[in-house]
Amino acid sequence: MSGSTTLSSDLLTMLRNKATSLRIESVRATTEAGSGHPTSCCSAADIVATLFFHVMRYDPKQPRHPNRDRFILSKGHAAPLLYAAWAEAGLFPKSELLTLRLLRSDLEGHPTPRLSFVDVATGSLGQGLAAGVGMALNAKYLDRSDYRTYVVLGDGESVEGSVWEAVEIARQHQLDNLCAIVDINRLGQSDPTMLQHDLEAYRARWSGFGWHAIVVDGHDIAALVQAFGEAVATKGRPTVLLAKTLKGKGISFIQDKPDWHGKPLKKGEEADRAIAELSQQFVSGNGAAPVIPSPTLAKKEEAGRKTLAAPSYKIGDMVATREAFGVALQALGEADPSVVALDADVKNSTYTDKFGKQFPSRFFENFIAEQNMIGAAVGLSTCGKVPFAATFAAFLTRAYDFIRMAAISQANVKLVGTHVGVSIGEDGASQMGLEDLAMMAAQPGVTVLYPSDGTSMYRLVEAAARQSGMVYLRAGRPKSPVIYGPDEPFSIGGSKVLRKSQQDQVTIVAAGVTLCEALKAHDQLKAQGIQTRVVDLYSVVPVDRATLADCAHATQKRVVTVEDHYAHGGLGDAVLGALSNEGVRVTKLAVRDIPRSGKPDELIDHFGIGVRSIVQAVKDLLKL
Amino acid sequence: MSGSTTLSSDLLTMLRNKATSLRIESVRATTEAGSGHPTSCCSAADIVATLFFHVMRYDPKQPRHPNRDRFILSKGHAAPLLYAAWAEAGLFPKSELLTLRLLRSDLEGHPTPRLSFVDVATGSLGQGLAAGVGMALNAKYLDRSDYRTYVVLGDGESVEGSVWEAVEIARQHQLDNLCAIVDINRLGQSDPTMLQHDLEAYRARWSGFGWHAIVVDGHDIAALVQAFGEAVATKGRPTVLLAKTLKGKGISFIQDKPDWHGKPLKKGEEADRAIAELSQQFVSGNGAAPVIPSPTLAKKEEAGRKTLAAPSYKIGDMVATREAFGVALQALGEADPSVVALDADVKNSTYTDKFGKQFPSRFFENFIAEQNMIGAAVGLSTCGKVPFAATFAAFLTRAYDFIRMAAISQANVKLVGTHVGVSIGEDGASQMGLEDLAMMAAQPGVTVLYPSDGTSMYRLVEAAARQSGMVYLRAGRPKSPVIYGPDEPFSIGGSKVLRKSQQDQVTIVAAGVTLCEALKAHDQLKAQGIQTRVVDLYSVVPVDRATLADCAHATQKRVVTVEDHYAHGGLGDAVLGALSNEGVRVTKLAVRDIPRSGKPDELIDHFGIGVRSIVQAVKDLLKL
Repeated sequence: MSGSTTLSSDLLTMLRNKATSLRIESVRATTEAGSGHPTSCCSAADIVATLFFHVMRYDPKQPRHPNRDRFILSKGHAAPLLYAAWAEAGLFPKSELLTLRLLRSDLEGHPTPRLSFVDVATGSLGQGLAAGVGMALNAKYLDRSDYRTYVVLGDGESVEGSVWEAVEIARQHQLDNLCAIVDINRLGQSDPTMLQHDLEAYRARWSGFGWHAIVVDGHDIAALVQAFGEAVATKGRPTVLLAKTLKGKGISFIQDKPDWHGKPLKKGEEADRAIAELSQQFVSGNGAAPVIPSPTLAKKEEAGRKTLAAPSYKIGDMVATREAFGVALQALGEADPSVVALDADVKNSTYTDKFGKQFPSRFFENFIAEQNMIGAAVGLSTCGKVPFAATFAAFLTRAYDFIRMAAISQANVKLVGTHVGVSIGEDGASQMGLEDLAMMAAQPGVTVLYPSDGTSMYRLVEAAARQSGMVYLRAGRPKSPVIYGPDEPFSIGGSKVLRKSQQDQVTIVAAGVTLCEALKAHDQLKAQGIQTRVVDLYSVVPVDRATLADCAHATQKRVVTVEDHYAHGGLGDAVLGALSNEGVRVTKLAVRDIPRSGKPDELIDHFGIGVRSIVQAVKDLLKL
Repeated sequence: MSGSTTLSSDLLTMLRNKATSLRIESVRATTEAGSGHPTSCCSAADIVATLFFHVMRYDPKQPRHPNRDRFILSKGHAAPLLYAAWAEAGLFPKSELLTLRLLRSDLEGHPTPRLSFVDVATGSLGQGLAAGVGMALNAKYLDRSDYRTYVVLGDGESVEGSVWEAVEIARQHQLDNLCAIVDINRLGQSDPTMLQHDLEAYRARWSGFGWHAIVVDGHDIAALVQAFGEAVATKGRPTVLLAKTLKGKGISFIQDKPDWHGKPLKKGEEADRAIAELSQQFVSGNGAAPVIPSPTLAKKEEAGRKTLAAPSYKIGDMVATREAFGVALQALGEADPSVVALDADVKNSTYTDKFGKQFPSRFFENFIAEQNMIGAAVGLSTCGKVPFAATFAAFLTRAYDFIRMAAISQANVKLVGTHVGVSIGEDGASQMGLEDLAMMAAQPGVTVLYPSDGTSMYRLVEAAARQSGMVYLRAGRPKSPVIYGPDEPFSIGGSKVLRKSQQDQVTIVAAGVTLCEALKAHDQLKAQGIQTRVVDLYSVVPVDRATLADCAHATQKRVVTVEDHYAHGGLGDAVLGALSNEGVRVTKLAVRDIPRSGKPDELIDHFGIGVRSIVQAVKDLLKL
């Protein structure tokens, strides 16, 4: 921030007028669009004006300057305010603001990184602070940059548990370069908020969680400037400004009134009256010209990445794919300094502890806070890092909304879900990831990989790091035999035909633990005179349509799929989707009941995804 | 609880010996199983012994007594401790404890409601307190019962944001009948916990959130009894016992030591040594016999439900399915007193406000805390209520882990996701539910319904209430024409063939907003001499396989599916799955890119799910 925390009256005039301008533009844009949240913009206008035209250091012509102060509008529905601030700063003409929410415009209803000045998509509440944690971790522990990260939250969203995960982790990592501002405007969408204007209750929560908490009048610009200064001066812990505001501030006939959430002012008399009233709030005198502090010069890029050594597994070695992931991640850490890793207190099960021990400064423990882990990973990815975030696949469901928003952000994050399927055994259903393929493959632009042995996992971890965008890697708990030699290549979108003859009658498609079962079934069937083709479908999205179609046609359009996953949305459906226009017959073997504890082999058999079921399915298909 | 909070020495002796017994049984069972978490059992043994043999009122022979005090083991990995407590109370022989984690045993690695004494499955951390909120809401506001609800949490799981959602909502609803106990044993799975034994930091958090917080030595039974008494006496807010404990307490060579999470003692010398040491902790003297206070007599069941009036829509009326849901829910509230509703600050968008206004005492506002909303709904369902929980479908992703665990619990909850698909328009991607079918249909035992008009929504809301288990209803934002008369019947697992002729060449399957598009496409194609069959697939799971197969075969195995959902795991995949053995050709139209803001009709067209795309897909299929 620009040094001074006491304002000249000229500066104050300028900032007040900027806030008024932002309000007017927010009203204009939402009225023109016929939808949007002008009242949520008005409550935060003084905060945003103070940040954009006095506090934050950035380059209005280079919004992705690496050392810029970061700004996240966690209450994404106030998007028009953000857009107005950048137009006001000079990034684009104000006239564009009137394209709000049009199909041809990137000024969407909620901010997305289609815009040069937006790092992460917001609009699903409670996600901005976790991303801010990632950016602040990057500044403090990786880039050692002096940029600061500002996150504006709504009061309604403060009830989201994800906010408190971020609050905990930020304190734990002593992120004094992170500043949250809660726009406490008292009114939610459908009712007053839980705490309304009980600022002391807010203070008790945030300071109870170890933050430096400042209660401030969110419409008093001088007080805001002082509070931001206090935040800069606070060391060893993050600061929150608890800003008391009024929803619709500045427009007397809607200010602090219920039933005005998400409603634009009507074109004509209503909007005109609001804009006239706001216009009267311009303070006379020109005021000072805004002086936007520049970010410090960016450091040079670090040296590039090296090539990974080949995996060291020999065919027949017994290796869990989760362990091969850990080994590959460690090797990747050595080869590529931009790779970082995040854990949620299972690093000794996912084997990210190998990376963590070798590169402690690039390893971030999130304790048991999966939502923050994903949000922080997204934040780190916006700073040029390649984050790998790993936990049990089952617990990635905890962060599904964060994953959904990361897909919208097209974030370059790599997620690893271990302990998939009934093959984890005795721990039982709560620990078994059986819907992870469905949830990950549903998201647009996400690569979904499901390696079956140590070698392919190792190679695909490397491929994931090189692949732009979100990649999901599915990893199993039990040890299984290595089936590929160390020089076997694996590419995203590929597959491997492991068994093939001219007499094949059925194609069996599998991945992970069921691939072993498929190979065993192949042998049993062969002994009975039935030849089958076996495909390792390690790339579920994108899928190797050509190979699948070739195999299906070579086996009279008969296909059996088998997976340690629930029946809907998994590998079988990926195959069905790939072959949907081929007129094939597909028998899908998958887990169709609520699983339970037991020994892995017993469960694989009991839930119908083992060798016995595959053999039967092949025979049944031949009878059709 | 049994009145007295000062203990006779006999009582104290009895409780200490019970705790020692529970420790021994936990060690024995996990050693026999060869896996499990004995150290996590030992830290909580005194807490559980005090609750089960002095504080809680329940009937050991009737574990589902309606007025029993509720007990939730949120740290589900301490399951052997829970099982030992019930065996000790006399529900089943102790010898059964040694079947822990076997496929044939219901004593699973983590507790599930397969057991008569477990209300909700736990094992995914941070979920127990939300369920407890539901049970406490039921006692205080619905059944007006004096039962109390006790939830034992781990310290590691306290970082989960979902815990803080439940903490907020419990305080807001003044749940003084709810008591949380945090077993603060200092050690997580992979490392010490964030706050270790900083009890004052815990106190600041919980009391900052408005709870009555008591710091207590979790191994001092007299102190625990006193603290539970203080909890009973505390009115107007919930109480938490912050219990300082040691992981592995009582076994000197593992007590308070890292690297002992989730590890059983080895059979033979190691386990023998532990059991010998624990056995020496039995206090001499017989002690008092345990007196388990009985629950108060249950109230009579309320009068049963009435039949719902027919929906009032006329064909051609313009009604959003979300609005029809609200109307149906209100009617259902009138007809069935067990129906309750939960909101997360969108009741004026999902139309649950209609129910809320008419039945305020059966309506629970969760503010913006979707995880708590689902967890509380599950808790309410265990008390015989039929909870409808509604929010934007996109935001149900926030609670996916809760939904996953509710499926494992086979909970009788009804979830409604509104604002699905790109057809919501201007708000943009963050608000569009495009993966809800994938995530709901993946879960075992969940019914997934996707009505296309007001009448079918109304009827299917009624069917959902009558259907046992979890039901998901998908609802759209825009108004669309009513296509069914008020007497049209709808059943789960059914479908409607809306257009049919002897000359049909292609079957078009749709639901929701795309059904209108399909009907328009039918008309356009008919005008061009191409006859198509149109199916309303309002029941996605279970799916009407017979009708789909009939239609497909009648149209030369040519099918087009079209849905306002991402391409993987939606309606198209449900159709492909149903027809997987029919050798059909299916063209799947769905949203395949990251969506954006725009007008609903523009977006439907732009993302390839409108009439133009359907017409083209039909023509392309005819060329194959």
